[in-house]
Amino acid sequence: MTRQELIDNIRRKKSFLCVGLDTDLKKIPEHLLREEEDPIFAFNKAIIDATAPYCVAYKPNLAFYEAFGLEGLIAFDKTVRYLRENYPDQFIIADAKRGDIGNTSAMYARTFFEEYEVDAVTVAPYMGEDSVTPFLGYEGKWVILLALTSNKGSQDFQLTENTKGERLFEKVLRKSQEWADSEQMMYVVGATQGQAFEDIRKIVPHHFLLVPGIGAQGGSLEEVCKYGMTKECGLIVNSSRAIIYADKTKNFAQVAGEKAKEVADQMAELLKW
Amino acid sequence: MTRQELIDNIRRKKSFLCVGLDTDLKKIPEHLLREEEDPIFAFNKAIIDATAPYCVAYKPNLAFYEAFGLEGLIAFDKTVRYLRENYPDQFIIADAKRGDIGNTSAMYARTFFEEYEVDAVTVAPYMGEDSVTPFLGYEGKWVILLALTSNKGSQDFQLTENTKGERLFEKVLRKSQEWADSEQMMYVVGATQGQAFEDIRKIVPHHFLLVPGIGAQGGSLEEVCKYGMTKECGLIVNSSRAIIYADKTKNFAQVAGEKAKEVADQMAELLKW
Repeated sequence: MTRQELIDNIRRKKSFLCVGLDTDLKKIPEHLLREEEDPIFAFNKAIIDATAPYCVAYKPNLAFYEAFGLEGLIAFDKTVRYLRENYPDQFIIADAKRGDIGNTSAMYARTFFEEYEVDAVTVAPYMGEDSVTPFLGYEGKWVILLALTSNKGSQDFQLTENTKGERLFEKVLRKSQEWADSEQMMYVVGATQGQAFEDIRKIVPHHFLLVPGIGAQGGSLEEVCKYGMTKECGLIVNSSRAIIYADKTKNFAQVAGEKAKEVADQMAELLKW
Repeated sequence: MTRQELIDNIRRKKSFLCVGLDTDLKKIPEHLLREEEDPIFAFNKAIIDATAPYCVAYKPNLAFYEAFGLEGLIAFDKTVRYLRENYPDQFIIADAKRGDIGNTSAMYARTFFEEYEVDAVTVAPYMGEDSVTPFLGYEGKWVILLALTSNKGSQDFQLTENTKGERLFEKVLRKSQEWADSEQMMYVVGATQGQAFEDIRKIVPHHFLLVPGIGAQGGSLEEVCKYGMTKECGLIVNSSRAIIYADKTKNFAQVAGEKAKEVADQMAELLKW
């Protein structure tokens, strides 16, 4: 998906919501475990059908699928295919946080962009340029590089200031612009980071930011928009647990849809388009 | 496996070689593709049987298995089981370079330590403490944290000096000692980093280092030992391509065994035990 297509989808839907498919067999409604042959996919399918009108992206986190072995990966594959076939306007993010030496990153890129055909992969920057660039060789495919994450541990290294007065996440933002522009690169910035969005927009005024951390992690949507929104929106805000696990009865999908709509309504207000 | 068991294995075998199982269907001998139902596992099994006398560890890199979808992951699982059952003295490293927010890292830890039962997982430090500690809740299991990697991109961020005169990899080494000691934590340091091993040993005098980058990547075993070896060895040196792809005929396993023996012989010299 191109940047312009993404912007058009946001404009049309008046939403920049991404629903995180962190599907855990220990948390999904019990009746699915009893009744469904592939409960992970059954859960995802129901959640997708209920929330698709209110979001522009889905973000399955690979950890959750890998944890259930082959069964989990089959469900991941089916989920991506289901989205591709039924909701081609959804931006699909494989939240995998990969990154390795060049020949290895190339293998990961091939997996996610050729085997699974997702639109974007999250990548960790620690290993530098040649760990990231193999993901950039696919037209219309994106790298979403970790910059300033939503967790407490983001303070351990990402905020470390270097001799040029630059914090590590700022160096990541600057340096990585040598590798790709805003047509192929986005950045992960946690919703819990508040005013840091102002500093980030000084370095990447036009890039899309993938923002996890509203909902269960406690970040504020208003604050993210206040400091992070651009003329073209420039934000994809993710919510996982607060939407997909809002209800554990047979009504789970309907309630997830309602929760997604609530967030999308807030977003429509904040977009001011 | 405990630290003492690993040291005992190194002492007994006079080798600290790790064979990297970066198994790629595009690079393995063609006859395996024609004759074997599961050519990835068939290749690994033959390589393991030929090299096991000369090494103390195996390191399958997950990227290579994931790239072949379910088939690849079945082969990974079979490889780990084969090692567990037939070579219980081998230290098994899942080279996955994972790391995510706490609840997600916990899922990865469960996958690698409960589903696959490997001894160690490589973890990226960028997201800090709560992305690493979920891997530390398993007795006898290890985190191998990226410190100073073997690739060119290691210069982009890992060498960045902070306001305390500390480079990022040095901060990673120091900070992470608050999370685990040398009984559960090792560090990745590329063989291509030469004298940096001296600086690293000032910060982690007793920790084991996992050292990729000899062979195809051009690092020197002598130099690594000169600057990085401790009284208890303290090194696991990995070679992948130079061993497993040394020959592409029906003799591939035998040649891999010979190459592994060559490295092990050098190591026996360098160990001086």
